[in-house]
Amino acid sequence: MNALFNGAACNSELASSRGLHYGDGVFRTMLLWQGAVPDLRRQLDVLERDAARLELLPPPRALLEAEIASLCAREAAGVIKLILSRRAGGRGYRSEGDECDRLLLRLPAPRYPEACWEQGIRCAMSRVSLGDQPLLAGIKHLNRLEQVLASRHWPEDAEELFVCDARGLVVAGTRSNLFRVAEGRLWTSALERCGIRGMMRDKILELAEQLQIPVHFDDPTPDLLRQADEIFVSNSLIGLWPVREFDGTALAAPGPLTRRLAMALNHPRLEPIRE
Amino acid sequence: MNALFNGAACNSELASSRGLHYGDGVFRTMLLWQGAVPDLRRQLDVLERDAARLELLPPPRALLEAEIASLCAREAAGVIKLILSRRAGGRGYRSEGDECDRLLLRLPAPRYPEACWEQGIRCAMSRVSLGDQPLLAGIKHLNRLEQVLASRHWPEDAEELFVCDARGLVVAGTRSNLFRVAEGRLWTSALERCGIRGMMRDKILELAEQLQIPVHFDDPTPDLLRQADEIFVSNSLIGLWPVREFDGTALAAPGPLTRRLAMALNHPRLEPIRE
Repeated sequence: MNALFNGAACNSELASSRGLHYGDGVFRTMLLWQGAVPDLRRQLDVLERDAARLELLPPPRALLEAEIASLCAREAAGVIKLILSRRAGGRGYRSEGDECDRLLLRLPAPRYPEACWEQGIRCAMSRVSLGDQPLLAGIKHLNRLEQVLASRHWPEDAEELFVCDARGLVVAGTRSNLFRVAEGRLWTSALERCGIRGMMRDKILELAEQLQIPVHFDDPTPDLLRQADEIFVSNSLIGLWPVREFDGTALAAPGPLTRRLAMALNHPRLEPIRE
Repeated sequence: MNALFNGAACNSELASSRGLHYGDGVFRTMLLWQGAVPDLRRQLDVLERDAARLELLPPPRALLEAEIASLCAREAAGVIKLILSRRAGGRGYRSEGDECDRLLLRLPAPRYPEACWEQGIRCAMSRVSLGDQPLLAGIKHLNRLEQVLASRHWPEDAEELFVCDARGLVVAGTRSNLFRVAEGRLWTSALERCGIRGMMRDKILELAEQLQIPVHFDDPTPDLLRQADEIFVSNSLIGLWPVREFDGTALAAPGPLTRRLAMALNHPRLEPIRE
């Protein structure tokens, strides 16, 4: 016996996982809806893109698809979380290979008030800023302490908090990508210094292209964000939520362009709470 | 069954650990020597200091001490790794409490050539820079992807790599703290932007004070580091290693001040390989 978890002998391979020890891995948080993961192909595309950035070799797609299907079967709704972490080995931080362990979890679906989709959400600024690290920017990796810290001491009157980069420019929500509409165009962060390139962000950018909505990439100051015509946030679980209030400033929610994108997206609503 | 690890049902509590999912925790890597952890009090002091920074509540000291003693008993040498991670709960990044799970592992002792202590090591610069994040700087937390990336593609002729901060100033080794001797004084990074405040660094700084060696804090350029009279690195396993070559520049190793500190430190040598 050479491992104790909360005082009890522990032989789990997870105890030596490089995911646990270093956060040496990537993950996806995916909607489970009517027995399957919508956009699974996209999710696995993003997973492979992220894994390649860390020089991780994902398991064969067919294997992941089969295991995900087995967890989803006969479930109405939920969340599937997939973690790929570099297989234990090497000495300390030094790793020897690119092989991965995979962990799949089925979690209960979160429930949100229907008003989040219909009337929009209230957002505030987090006091936590994201550090610059271009080598990791955009990747949904397992080093998420900044998001954890940004999510502590959450104000009661906000459904999402926005985080700035080291320059004080607004990059994203703690668990969402951030879009604004200004001058008839759609704007979002390029995520080249920090932040996560979510699957839903990719999907919305593709939709915008199909709908011939011009897209620009930048990181606004909080003041510039406040002057936006519309703001919305996105992630794989919620699809898209309009923002009706940012840091005390009221916004049209949903604004016309947000509404157009939400209709085109047609994302399932996770067991809404009707208040 | 709602979790699969490499395809097999998995009921481990570790599967839902916030340590694995977010790196929401802290750790210590401690020398096991002749049935005990030398400097255990210091290690637990640093653990508590780090945990407080993340608003984590460590288990009672007596409990940790008893479990560590049980893993160390009758062992000649090895490594004890202690991971504290915030207990699962909350929604996504948002956590609900400060309670911790604890994982203790006993690992084999690494073996190093005796020359590392006697004649010193060769060091080079890593191509990976550490991002600035003052909120996390100094803490031995579980988000260590930067160190993992810095440790990939390790050159054959180096025993340690040095990493710069975002300004291009040298902060530390990938798995050690970095000291230099110049102008008769000892210099090391204040670690206020990035890097880890190791237990052995604290101990060496205290020793320097006892020996009336003046200490200054700064981050040198690689050029300034090259001009040092002496360089050495430290961590809990090795104690202290002189640096005999940095990026092609030869250095006195061990230099007189390094030798004085090493003698005062009197750190056990982990099963040296005699070549």
